[in-house]
Amino acid sequence: MKTSAPRNALYAQSGGVTAVINASACGVIETALKARRQIGRIYAGRDGIVGALTEDLIDVSAESAATIRALRHTPAGAFGSARFKLKGLDKNRAEYERLIEVFKAHDIGYFFYNGGNDSMDTALKVSQIGAQLGYPVTCIGVPKTVDNDLPHTDCCPGFGSVAKYIAISTLEGALDVASMARTSTKVFVLEVMGRHAGWIAAAGGLAGRKAGEPPHIILFPEIPFQKEAFLARVKQCVTDYGYCVVVVSEGAKYPDGTFLAEAGTKDAFGHTQLGGVGPVVANMVREALGYKYHWAVADYLQRAARHIASKVDVEQAYAVGKAAVEYAVKGMHAVMPAIKRTSSKPYRWKIVPVPLADVANVEKKVPREFITADGFGITPTCRRYLEPLIAGEDYPPYEGGLPKYLRLKGKPVRRRLKTAFKI
Amino acid sequence: MKTSAPRNALYAQSGGVTAVINASACGVIETALKARRQIGRIYAGRDGIVGALTEDLIDVSAESAATIRALRHTPAGAFGSARFKLKGLDKNRAEYERLIEVFKAHDIGYFFYNGGNDSMDTALKVSQIGAQLGYPVTCIGVPKTVDNDLPHTDCCPGFGSVAKYIAISTLEGALDVASMARTSTKVFVLEVMGRHAGWIAAAGGLAGRKAGEPPHIILFPEIPFQKEAFLARVKQCVTDYGYCVVVVSEGAKYPDGTFLAEAGTKDAFGHTQLGGVGPVVANMVREALGYKYHWAVADYLQRAARHIASKVDVEQAYAVGKAAVEYAVKGMHAVMPAIKRTSSKPYRWKIVPVPLADVANVEKKVPREFITADGFGITPTCRRYLEPLIAGEDYPPYEGGLPKYLRLKGKPVRRRLKTAFKI
Repeated sequence: MKTSAPRNALYAQSGGVTAVINASACGVIETALKARRQIGRIYAGRDGIVGALTEDLIDVSAESAATIRALRHTPAGAFGSARFKLKGLDKNRAEYERLIEVFKAHDIGYFFYNGGNDSMDTALKVSQIGAQLGYPVTCIGVPKTVDNDLPHTDCCPGFGSVAKYIAISTLEGALDVASMARTSTKVFVLEVMGRHAGWIAAAGGLAGRKAGEPPHIILFPEIPFQKEAFLARVKQCVTDYGYCVVVVSEGAKYPDGTFLAEAGTKDAFGHTQLGGVGPVVANMVREALGYKYHWAVADYLQRAARHIASKVDVEQAYAVGKAAVEYAVKGMHAVMPAIKRTSSKPYRWKIVPVPLADVANVEKKVPREFITADGFGITPTCRRYLEPLIAGEDYPPYEGGLPKYLRLKGKPVRRRLKTAFKI
Repeated sequence: MKTSAPRNALYAQSGGVTAVINASACGVIETALKARRQIGRIYAGRDGIVGALTEDLIDVSAESAATIRALRHTPAGAFGSARFKLKGLDKNRAEYERLIEVFKAHDIGYFFYNGGNDSMDTALKVSQIGAQLGYPVTCIGVPKTVDNDLPHTDCCPGFGSVAKYIAISTLEGALDVASMARTSTKVFVLEVMGRHAGWIAAAGGLAGRKAGEPPHIILFPEIPFQKEAFLARVKQCVTDYGYCVVVVSEGAKYPDGTFLAEAGTKDAFGHTQLGGVGPVVANMVREALGYKYHWAVADYLQRAARHIASKVDVEQAYAVGKAAVEYAVKGMHAVMPAIKRTSSKPYRWKIVPVPLADVANVEKKVPREFITADGFGITPTCRRYLEPLIAGEDYPPYEGGLPKYLRLKGKPVRRRLKTAFKI
C-alpha cells in the first residue's frame, strides 16, 4: 500500500436528507479538491452506502466547479441517500468486508460518512474492520440530522433550517387562523417531525415572543400526553384569545408509551385509519370541544425547504464538511467534527473533533428545563439555545420563479470488481 | 347629505385570507390617503363585514405610514376577515339595512370589499340597497382568492403566491423522495387547496420542466378520478423513475361526484376517519401496490406563505387595491378592478374595470385544454398561463431569523349607534 502518494476519497450520504446536507458535501468536496497532496479522486456513493457496497460510485472530481458550488444551495441528497444500516460486525461481517474490497479496488483511503447516530456507528465500524483487515481507512463522520438528536455537538446541521421553516410556518399559519377565528376555524394543528426528540416541535415555539402569542400549545415526545389537561388548555386559549395554535411532534406519546399517531391508526373494530398525529389531535379537539379546526402535516416539505434555509445552518453544514477533510489530512481518525457554542449573545461557534465512539447510537432529547412546567411551551433557556440557529437567510438563486436547484446526473466510476453484491 | 365634502371609506376583508390580501389593503389605504378631496377618514371592519354590521370599526387613518407600509409584506387578514355571507335581500333585508345604518352613522360613502365570488355579490347588493334606501354608497370589489376561480380577471391576487409556494414545495419534496427512493419512500403525495377548481394543483406541475420530472401525477377536481388508471400510473412511474410524486387537489372527486376526501371520512361501519384526501390517496397506493409512502397536507401554510410570495402577485394585489380607490374617486360604481394580460412573453398586464354583476357567484375552473389528455398533467398552454404568475421573489424583512410581520391592534372607532346587532 502506498503511504505517501495521494489516495482517493469516498463521500456518502446517509438516512433522511436535509435542506443542507449537500452544503456539507460541498464543504467536503471543495476542501478535498484543494488537498491535492493527500487526496486523489473524490468519489460519492450513489444512494449512499448502497452505492459503496454495489460499487456504484460517482466521480465527483469530474464535475465542474460551478456544479460543486451549486450543491451548497440544493436541498435533499444530490448523490442519493439510503436508509440502510449495516448490521453488527458479528451478524454480517460480509458487508464490511465487501466495503473494504470496494475501497481497495478504488484505492479509497478516506471515507466521509454524512449522517446521524447510526451512520456514526457505521463509520466507526468501517474504521475498525479496515484496520483488522490490514487496509487502514481514515473514517470521518460528518454530522447531519433534522432531529438534532446527536450528542456532543451543540446542534446538528439540517436542524437549523427545519427549525426556521417550522417557526415561520407556525407564525404564518397562526396569523391566518387569528384573522378568521371569529367566524371560522378556531384551532389549528401543525404536525412536525423529530421522532423521539422534540427539538423541531420546540422550534415552533419561536413563533411567539410574548405571552399569549401562538403557538399556545406544543406537544413534545418528552412529555407524556395528558388528554384532559390538553383539552382544558385548548378551551382556555379559545376563550382567552379567540383561537388556539397547537404544534405537535410526530413522536408525541401517551403516558403508557403509545404514540398518539399509532392510537389513530386503528379504530375499536381494527379498521385502519388514515393520518398522522396532526389529524388525530385535531379530531380529539373536535370531538371533545366541537371547535372548527384545520390541520397541516409539513412532512418532507419541512426538511427539504432550502428556499428558507437558515444562514447559520448552511454555514455550519459547510463548515463540518470542510473540517472533516481537514481532520483527515491532518491524520485524525474516527472522529466527527462537532459544533461547539462559545457564546449565545452574540452567537459564536467553532468546530471541534469528537470521537465517533462517543457519538454512535446516543440520542439527545430536549432537556426538561427547556420545557415549561406545564409541559406545553418552551422556556427562555430553550429560546436562547434555539434563536441563533435560525438566524439569517440564505436564499438560493431563482429562475422563472423557481429555485435553481442542481439535478446531478453524476458520471459513474468504471467498475473494477467482478463480483456483484446484492443488498 | 353632503355631496362635495369628503366622505369616509370603509375597507373590509372577506373569506379565506391570503399571503397578499394585506398588500391590497395597503394599495387601498395608501391611495385613499392621497385622495383628500374625496375621501375623509379610512376605516376597516374588524373581522370584515362582521365588524361593519356590529359597528366594530378600526380607524386606519390613525396608523403610521410605516404601519400601513408593513401591510404590504404581512400575510393573512391584518384587520380580520370573516366567513359570513349576507343572505339574499329577500331573505334578510335587515342585514343590509343595518349596514346602511352603520354607513350613515359614520358618513361612509365608499365601500371597498376585498374578497372572492360571494363578496362581489355582497358588494353589488350593498350598492343596490343603498340606492333604494336613498343613501348611495360607492361600492367597489377588490378581487382576492387563492382558488383563482373568479371570472373576467386573468388571475386572482393571492393565487400567484400559493402557486409559487406549491410549485417550490413540490420541487423540494420531490428532490427529497428522489434521493431516498432506492431504499425508502417511493411515493410522495402532496395535498393542496383549491376547492372545486384545480388551479393550485396545476401550479404543482410547474415543478417539472422536462418529461419524467416530478410531479408525475396531478389529480384535478375537474377530472373525475379513475382509481385503476391512477394506480397503474403510479406503478409505471415507480418502475420508470424509481419513485412517484402526486399532487392532489382537496376537491378531487370520483365520477359520481363523491369527494375522495369524503370517502375517507367514514368507514363501512360509520366510524369517522381522520384526514384529508392526501392520506386517502396515499393509503390507496399502499393497499394496492404496497409502496412505502409519505404525504403532506400544506393547508394554511400554503396560503399564508408570505415568506415566499410571488413578486408579480404582490404587485397585482397592491395594484387592484390602488385601482379600486382610483375608480371610486372617478365616480365609477359597482365594479371590480380585474387583471388583464396583454402579453405572456414578456409578461405584461394592466388593470381594467369589470362590472360586479358579471363577477358575482361565477366560478372559473381549469379549462380542459390546460390538462393533458390523460388527465394527470398540465399542458404547455397551462404552463404559459401559470409561469408569469409565480415570477419574482418579494421577501419580507427579517428580525432574529423570523419575518417581521405586522400585528395590528387597530384603534377602534367610537360607536355612534345605540343599537347592537347580533350576527
